[in-house]
Amino acid sequence: MRTYTKIRQLLARQPLGETVRVAGWVRTRRDTGGFSFIEVNDGSCLGNLQVIADKRLGNYEAGIKRLTAGCSVEVEGTVQESPARGQAVELVAAEIKVVGWADPETYPLQKKRHSFEFLREIAHLRPRTNALGAVARVRSRLAYAVHAFFQERGFIQVHTPIITTSDCEGAGEMFQISTGQPSGGPGTDFFGRRAGLTVSGQLQAEVYALALGDVYTFGPTFRAENSNTSRHLAEFWMIEPEMAFCDLAGNRRIAEELLKYLLDDILAACAEDMELFDRFIAKGLVERLRSVAGQDFAHITYTEAVEELQHSGRTFDFPVRWGIDLQSEHERYLTDEVYRRPLVVTDYPAAIKPFYMRINDDGRTVAAMDILVPGIGEIVGGSQREERYEVLERRMQEAGIDLDDYRWYLDLRRYGTVPHAGFGLGFERLVQFVSGMANIREVIPFPRTPGFAPC
Amino acid sequence: MRTYTKIRQLLARQPLGETVRVAGWVRTRRDTGGFSFIEVNDGSCLGNLQVIADKRLGNYEAGIKRLTAGCSVEVEGTVQESPARGQAVELVAAEIKVVGWADPETYPLQKKRHSFEFLREIAHLRPRTNALGAVARVRSRLAYAVHAFFQERGFIQVHTPIITTSDCEGAGEMFQISTGQPSGGPGTDFFGRRAGLTVSGQLQAEVYALALGDVYTFGPTFRAENSNTSRHLAEFWMIEPEMAFCDLAGNRRIAEELLKYLLDDILAACAEDMELFDRFIAKGLVERLRSVAGQDFAHITYTEAVEELQHSGRTFDFPVRWGIDLQSEHERYLTDEVYRRPLVVTDYPAAIKPFYMRINDDGRTVAAMDILVPGIGEIVGGSQREERYEVLERRMQEAGIDLDDYRWYLDLRRYGTVPHAGFGLGFERLVQFVSGMANIREVIPFPRTPGFAPC
Repeated sequence: MRTYTKIRQLLARQPLGETVRVAGWVRTRRDTGGFSFIEVNDGSCLGNLQVIADKRLGNYEAGIKRLTAGCSVEVEGTVQESPARGQAVELVAAEIKVVGWADPETYPLQKKRHSFEFLREIAHLRPRTNALGAVARVRSRLAYAVHAFFQERGFIQVHTPIITTSDCEGAGEMFQISTGQPSGGPGTDFFGRRAGLTVSGQLQAEVYALALGDVYTFGPTFRAENSNTSRHLAEFWMIEPEMAFCDLAGNRRIAEELLKYLLDDILAACAEDMELFDRFIAKGLVERLRSVAGQDFAHITYTEAVEELQHSGRTFDFPVRWGIDLQSEHERYLTDEVYRRPLVVTDYPAAIKPFYMRINDDGRTVAAMDILVPGIGEIVGGSQREERYEVLERRMQEAGIDLDDYRWYLDLRRYGTVPHAGFGLGFERLVQFVSGMANIREVIPFPRTPGFAPC
Repeated sequence: MRTYTKIRQLLARQPLGETVRVAGWVRTRRDTGGFSFIEVNDGSCLGNLQVIADKRLGNYEAGIKRLTAGCSVEVEGTVQESPARGQAVELVAAEIKVVGWADPETYPLQKKRHSFEFLREIAHLRPRTNALGAVARVRSRLAYAVHAFFQERGFIQVHTPIITTSDCEGAGEMFQISTGQPSGGPGTDFFGRRAGLTVSGQLQAEVYALALGDVYTFGPTFRAENSNTSRHLAEFWMIEPEMAFCDLAGNRRIAEELLKYLLDDILAACAEDMELFDRFIAKGLVERLRSVAGQDFAHITYTEAVEELQHSGRTFDFPVRWGIDLQSEHERYLTDEVYRRPLVVTDYPAAIKPFYMRINDDGRTVAAMDILVPGIGEIVGGSQREERYEVLERRMQEAGIDLDDYRWYLDLRRYGTVPHAGFGLGFERLVQFVSGMANIREVIPFPRTPGFAPC
């Protein structure tokens, strides 16, 4: 069992004069004046470590001089101050062991920049690039920050089920499951009834909120939707807090606090990766995120949004009238042109929202909220839930839902009901917002889209 | 938007003389001498807050005196020292608002103790009980501690896919998915080929380990296995770290560190809930876990285990000879009777282990490890992975695997291969070990088992 120093730590600590051992993959090699300069990356950070190999090393001709991009190496050497620009320290090698080769004739990742489309075809190699490596680190840190935010506030994480017989959104876009054995149809053979993949953990999260107070889920959700766009995935991760004794205003407050917390955290914890995005993916990104984190979100009601759109003087592809669902072009106009910051829109028409949202006193709107962010559109959707048994039952009947399948959900209103609220934050939308990546397929390790699930 | 003080904070801080507002559910009510004593629980902790209601309160007869188990209330009052045993403070109510009723004629959770079997039938109400509420809090904290352990050590969390076309274990126990539309068979209609639910994120985690160094997954995994036992679920969560430049010894060290870290953390962070388990679920639990956390795990090879079993003088249902898979009775004997602490067994016969495990120099064993814990059996399974292209290819051919489906996996050995290792820790087994719960169905919020997926 050997141990290695991570390049991230080495670059941070700069232990001049110490002998260390690092292990990683060669990014580039250049030879000059009897030395080779080898850039080694170990994935712990974006930055490479420059390794200097003297031609007098035993395996210089047979090994070191044949190193190319992608080869794996173990290096033992001494840390010294670097005379080169852009790096504080470098490693003078006492020994370089070649662990694995990467034939430059066939290795797909060469020094030139590759298109993200091309990289998608080699999903198993693309995290070895600077951009996709940075996405992986930022995604991981964001996920951890989500947990930290909720856990620090006493929320309980609930692992709601993936396989379910409830369809929260009622949209009929659920994947069905089966054991592959011929029998009574998908799902029935194993669970004794039709079963599919969850579209949201909300209904089950409500079970736990009404027992434990503040809870959240963070897990995969699914849509069998034939959408080949840069914003849709068949499998994506969602964060869904659910709070007992909470109304729409409280819901809004938590969502805004969460988003700001995540931005502050990622800007501090992943500064190097964020700078890469700022330079090569989305100019001005860091400044934009800082500004979002630093000011209050705007807030208007749906009715106000409709009036604002109608008086905009704009011609939209989808004409605006009270009762329509807001389209991307409408949301974009409001966030990117009018408010230029995150915008919370509340109190949508009941007719365009699901049965579980709480009916307002006007009888025609519900206590719903969407949070729209510039450049991305909707990133959060939530609501206060209908906690009144009779009202909920009526709404479910109107929606054509078989009440017998949802007795358990109605029971939550029958026994100790309380006002409660929650929202869903699409995790990939968040990673897009934070990284500036244009296509959602770049911000999840193995995107699943129609016709595409290569491994 | 109203705010409430969480009972957990209130009991910890004991703000004597302060006016606070709490919200929660009634556990019990008893009336004596012109007062009602109401135990209120808000799920933030196991402990209840005793609320004292004077009969002179406005809604005393119409509201307060009708409160029963499960009703929801908001209480405003003054914190005072409690003369009663077992609690430091109580709340003298200035106002008690009844938010939701729970008809005692039909509400299934009465004061008496209910069997876990009964509670499983009301999965939507069972987190309102002391034991299941404690499990939820401990599970949530353990999950967070898993993230903290890995993130503190620089590991990157990778969300490996749930829907996959790879079958890591090759056991043929994958759920198949479809859109429910008639067409070319499960999965083919959406992804263009047969797709199912992952049985392990390992193969895809290896992709990221060979780019970023140290990574881990923590997500749901599935088995379409018709096992109705207290140890099996069709859907369960798994933690799978994967480390580049790591051998079996390093793998063992990380696994042991992780388990000890989790035990230390949970004993400190959830002391009250752990005491409940110790008193009512598994006597001596806390002491046992402390002892596990405090000493080195035992370690023997498979070959030594076989010899030990053969010389035990025991008669086992499954006779022991070199080459068999160890059965529960063998593992139990070793952990519960011989070693009485966690036991790492390494270097199993290649013939009983999957293709991806690294062949040892003896040619007949692999660099595998299982960690067995008293009372539970196997909790961790892992290995060093076969990093040699030719050896892996031969093993895959011998296992009858279609190499064309796994070119991406072989590529990891073709380009910059490195020694690497990892393991899987079954999260529900861990929660069972920590809580002492006998049946795995009690440690996951909504268990999925053959014939059972009620919501």
